[in-house]
Order: sequence, then C-alpha cells, then structure tokens
Amino acid sequence: MLTVKRLDLKDALTMIEGAKAKAEEIGVPMSIAVTDESCNLIAFARMDGTKTPGISLAIDKSFTATGTRKGTHELGAASQPGKPAYGISSTLGGRMVTVGGGLPVIVDGVVVGGIGASSGTPLQDQEVAEAGIQALLASE
Amino acid sequence: MLTVKRLDLKDALTMIEGAKAKAEEIGVPMSIAVTDESCNLIAFARMDGTKTPGISLAIDKSFTATGTRKGTHELGAASQPGKPAYGISSTLGGRMVTVGGGLPVIVDGVVVGGIGASSGTPLQDQEVAEAGIQALLASE
Amino acid sequence: MLTVKRLDLKDALTMIEGAKAKAEEIGVPMSIAVTDESCNLIAFARMDGTKTPGISLAIDKSFTATGTRKGTHELGAASQPGKPAYGISSTLGGRMVTVGGGLPVIVDGVVVGGIGASSGTPLQDQEVAEAGIQALLASE
Amino acid sequence: MLTVKRLDLKDALTMIEGAKAKAEEIGVPMSIAVTDESCNLIAFARMDGTKTPGISLAIDKSFTATGTRKGTHELGAASQPGKPAYGISSTLGGRMVTVGGGLPVIVDGVVVGGIGASSGTPLQDQEVAEAGIQALLASE
Repeated sequence: MLTVKRLDLKDALTMIEGAKAKAEEIGVPMSIAVTDESCNLIAFARMDGTKTPGISLAIDKSFTATGTRKGTHELGAASQPGKPAYGISSTLGGRMVTVGGGLPVIVDGVVVGGIGASSGTPLQDQEVAEAGIQALLASE
Repeated sequence: MLTVKRLDLKDALTMIEGAKAKAEEIGVPMSIAVTDESCNLIAFARMDGTKTPGISLAIDKSFTATGTRKGTHELGAASQPGKPAYGISSTLGGRMVTVGGGLPVIVDGVVVGGIGASSGTPLQDQEVAEAGIQALLASE
Repeated sequence: MLTVKRLDLKDALTMIEGAKAKAEEIGVPMSIAVTDESCNLIAFARMDGTKTPGISLAIDKSFTATGTRKGTHELGAASQPGKPAYGISSTLGGRMVTVGGGLPVIVDGVVVGGIGASSGTPLQDQEVAEAGIQALLASE
Repeated sequence: MLTVKRLDLKDALTMIEGAKAKAEEIGVPMSIAVTDESCNLIAFARMDGTKTPGISLAIDKSFTATGTRKGTHELGAASQPGKPAYGISSTLGGRMVTVGGGLPVIVDGVVVGGIGASSGTPLQDQEVAEAGIQALLASE
C-alpha cells in the first residue's frame, strides 16, 4: 500500500492567490491552474481579460510539469531538434506543453503537485507560476 | 458588432465560495466549476476528498447549463426514452451532461454564465450549484 | 473510377439562406450547417443570439444525416431502448446525433449532402433544416 | 460583470465575402472561417475545389489568431527551434496553428474575433484573410 502526499485545496488557493498577485504586479492577466500529484486539477482561476486558449494551456502546463516533474521550459530545451526528447511536445493528444509557465511543486524532494500559468510571454508565465510556489512555501 | 455581458472572476469566486459553504454544510465535498456565457471556464475548485471524475463532470455540467440555458436536470427529464431530446446526452463528444448539478446564471433575462457541481447525488449537486447562484445574487 | 455528385458552395449558401429565413420567421436564432456527400463541412452560419453548443450540434447533425442518409429524428426513433440501433447515439466519439434537426439532401435518389440546424426544440430545428432543403429545390 | 464586444453574423459574412473575392482574384479556392472573441465559430464557407484538411485548418487558424491575439504567421516565427514559444504548435490537442493565414480582428484596440483561410500557400492564405478584414473595415 502506498501513502501519497499531495496539495490540498487550501494549498492550491494559496498558490493561485500568490500567482495572481504577481500577474497583477506585472500587469498581465493570466489563467492559473494547480494540479495534484496525480496530474488532476485542484483549482483554477482566469483573470479578467486573459486569452481564451490560456484556459487549457494553464491546465496542461500544470499537468505537464507535475507529470514530468520538470518545469515546462526545461522540456522546451530538452525537445529541440536533435535532442533526445525531440517530438515530446505533440504526445498525449497535444496535452504535453514544452513552453515555459509550468512548474512542479516539490516538498521534501517529492513532487506533490504542479502549477501552470498562461497568457503572457513564456518568461512572464514562468515568473507567475514561480510566485505561486513561493506563496505556498511562505505560508507553511 | 454585438455587446455581451458575462460573469467576471470576482463573480465566479463568490459563486464558488457560496457553493463550497453549502457543500460543507451538507457534508459532501464537491468539485465546483463556473463558466462564462460562451461556456469557457472562469474558476474551479475541488474540495478535499471529492471523486476524481467530478472534476470533468462539474466543468461539463457548467458548460452544458450555460450552453443550453437550462438546468442539467431539465435536460435529464427532456431526454428520457421516447422524449424529443432522447440521445442528446452523448453529443458534443460526451460533454453534454443531463444529470442534475448544472445551472445557468440568468441576470436580467440573459444567460451570463453557469455553474456546475459534482460528487454527491444529483440533487445534492443541484443544491450546491443553487447555493452558488444565491451567493452571487446576495453579493450584488 | 467513381463519379460523385455533391452540393457546391452556391447550393450550400442557398440552403443556409432558406433555413435562416425560416428561423427568423419562427423567431428562434439557429446555427445552420451544410455538409457534402462525404460528410465534410461546406458552409456554416450562426445567427446572433444562438446557444454555443449549437455550433457543434448543427455540424454534427448535418454530418449524421448525410452519413446515415436518414433524418436525425429517424435515428432517435430507431435507437430507443429495445430497438436494433439502441446505443448508436454515443458512437463516433459522440458525433452521431439522434435528435431531430439533421436531414440528408437527396437528389435523383442519391444523397448529395446534408443540413443540420440547432438551438430550438428538435421539431423547430427540423423545420428549419427542411426549409433549407426546400430553398435548394426551389432554386433549381 | 464584464461587457464584451464581438463580431456579429453580418460582420462575419462581410468578411467571408471579402476574403472569397480575393481568393477568386488570385485563383486559389479557399476555406474561410470567422470566429467570435471567445474563439467560437460564427461563419464558414468552403469554395468549390479546395483541399479537405483546409476545413479544419481555416477554423483552427481563426481560433488561434483570435485566442492568441496574433497573426498565426507571427506564432510561426516565435515558435522556431530555440525560440521561447518552441513547441506551442502542438498544444490544445493540435488546434494551435502556427502557419500563416489566421489574423485577429482588432477594433478600438480590442480583439473582437478572428479570421482564418486555408488551401493556398501560407502567404496566399494570409492575403485572403487580410482581405476579409479590409472588407469589414470598409463596411463600417
């Protein structure tokens, strides 16, 4: 029998609040998603004025980062032409995202969930996702 | 050019809070989703201890209720064998839900969004969705 | 080698105009789709104020009626519990629609395309689809 | 509550007429799609003699340009190997198109919809989409 650690809803809402505050600070409305360690959605918020595809992209970035246990920007680097993971971005029916903005949440060396943000540049999305993780760490 | 009214994120979070309070009151953890008038997700929260398929079910109930401008329980009644809408439940790639728990949000006679809840009985889900709408109306 | 007869764009636009006129007459805005004999979309129009799921439903009704060479309401009758086609409505990934509003276009005994309408009751949708076919026949 | 502006059916048909006229002028039959600001289809027309995949490509280009608020050719440039958006083209289940021919429709600085064209070279598709937008602007 396994015992699994995962984010709860309170954790997820703390992360979304932290990410939202950063998105407001840089002036880019975002879609923000948090998934649990099994890649399933816990919480989601779309700020007023975001782009529609960002809904699925934020969810899929969180899904990807949780599942691969890597930042989605790292997958972007690893999947360039000639690299071993080339082609990974179109797997899983297109749910695998290799553009920055998804990050795994690691506690005591174990992935307990992930966060994804979308609507800005990949670097802005990543900064907003990172702010979500910092908010979680600060709350403990 | 058309001008359209839709729920904003503040409205959606108010609805999720109201629905969550009702779910806690009746002791049934729920997944709760709110969509805008074009059926796109605005906010989502999964309470600790809910059932995994409830994630998609809550989102799809909200999508269905917004899109059909009817409570999903009404579609259930209208799609019984022998009724005109029989078979509707498997359309849209299975996203059309005809089980109670999805409600449209109607303001001044116009559908501005919807809410879906899932993890309890259809009647419990509907009660929780209704509480979300009441919270919105009370906040105005 | 086969020679295939199919609707052209002019035919499809004539059908959409005829269907639209009927929808305006009965006061129910509709999504209207016309497909060719291979079930591929030729033309589509969504009237202002229709329901969002009607987009896919109109396209899928036209697809279904063309492909099965039957009105979608006939499939509804044939797929009732206990009938031979029971269960057909959830096939093709949910694209098979067994609710009224889709009709095949038959010329000289051969199906050359189809039309689908959605946003009203199944009977209203069927009436609007029928008006599209009448407009085509009247134009020849 | 938000208030949103979007293209209506009359706008969409004006755009399709303008795009079709340009496609006829350059002698390349096209599929042409127009979506609203939430990326949902308003109108579609496939000229006689187009390529079958152009149906989905035109719709998905319009979806992409509306949703990202960028021309699809710009996404092509931004998603080359080594660029930050590398990998974006296979997201959203493959609906994200990074080949020219999709353009957002911007009125008073706000995206109110989009247009996509497909069946020629990416440059021809883009020229046809642009003609659709010019027809809308000329009609006001």
